[in-house]
Amino acid sequence: MRKVIMALGISLDGYIARPDGSFDFLFMPGDFMADFAAFHSSLDTAIMGRKTYDITKAMGEGGMGAKIRNYVFSRTLPPGERDGMTFVKGNPKALMDRLRKQKGKNIWLMGGGELGRDFLKADLVDEIHLGIVPVLLGAGIPLFPGGFPQRNFALIENKSFSKGLVSLKYKRVRSKAGKKKS
Amino acid sequence: MRKVIMALGISLDGYIARPDGSFDFLFMPGDFMADFAAFHSSLDTAIMGRKTYDITKAMGEGGMGAKIRNYVFSRTLPPGERDGMTFVKGNPKALMDRLRKQKGKNIWLMGGGELGRDFLKADLVDEIHLGIVPVLLGAGIPLFPGGFPQRNFALIENKSFSKGLVSLKYKRVRSKAGKKKS
Repeated sequence: MRKVIMALGISLDGYIARPDGSFDFLFMPGDFMADFAAFHSSLDTAIMGRKTYDITKAMGEGGMGAKIRNYVFSRTLPPGERDGMTFVKGNPKALMDRLRKQKGKNIWLMGGGELGRDFLKADLVDEIHLGIVPVLLGAGIPLFPGGFPQRNFALIENKSFSKGLVSLKYKRVRSKAGKKKS
Repeated sequence: MRKVIMALGISLDGYIARPDGSFDFLFMPGDFMADFAAFHSSLDTAIMGRKTYDITKAMGEGGMGAKIRNYVFSRTLPPGERDGMTFVKGNPKALMDRLRKQKGKNIWLMGGGELGRDFLKADLVDEIHLGIVPVLLGAGIPLFPGGFPQRNFALIENKSFSKGLVSLKYKRVRSKAGKKKS
């Protein structure tokens, strides 16, 4: 089945961006690129919140490449397709149910923290891939702003790369029926 | 020179405890114990904030063992020695300057987040050792509550242990005189 993978770079104190949205502190060292290329080729869909979209748009990126279908969750922008993006409103569960029924590759949950919270609340995240850079920012936009129930994961990969980048991959461990939910 | 090492277990979303102060989610697997013993024997001093002290006291621990000198930072408790602890008031820099001038082993900054912020603000942290457990709590007491300037680190160790515990060790990289402080 298609997996929803929350994958982001973060500071050691858990921020995806500085308070103004910039993320100059993130980096991908050369020895990480093969892993990133393999990850990218396992996807055909990217999902982001409106604030993350605004930032990628300001960078002139317009989505994650021609082979990737891009969805933007927004409470304020009108739904529909334009500029290579599909704008959607409302709870992520409806869209995810629809996407999971379709054949396809994995789905990249690009952030930000608020959309991640909605996905974690609805227990829609199958894997988390973190690239941790060795800096404490002391302020910023958190990847995990809280506001969802406990979710247990299992470590599936731990690698170190140049310049102190640590790449951690986790998969969701859902408790069996009858056990306390977490 | 004696190093100040901030060392704690945290959830994947950066919490040292649940909202009520409990930390049942933290664990030390058997294959981690040799590393922990080596760390513990490199220390002769432990420093904690008053809230962390209250929790260790409630657990009947009364400090970190007979060979460890324990300091508790508190704005409200009277300074002085009692119950095997030395209570101190005020900015950590004065105490750290005094301790660093004395011969001794490393100094364990046990937390919590608020005392950690004071130490990071004053740039008193030489190493950070994190034990990351594979759970998202969704709420809790953060290790890094923010409110200090950017601090750059370098990765010195990355190890995986049983049950998905990841142990990361970083050392502070202070910029040369004349360069922008971070």
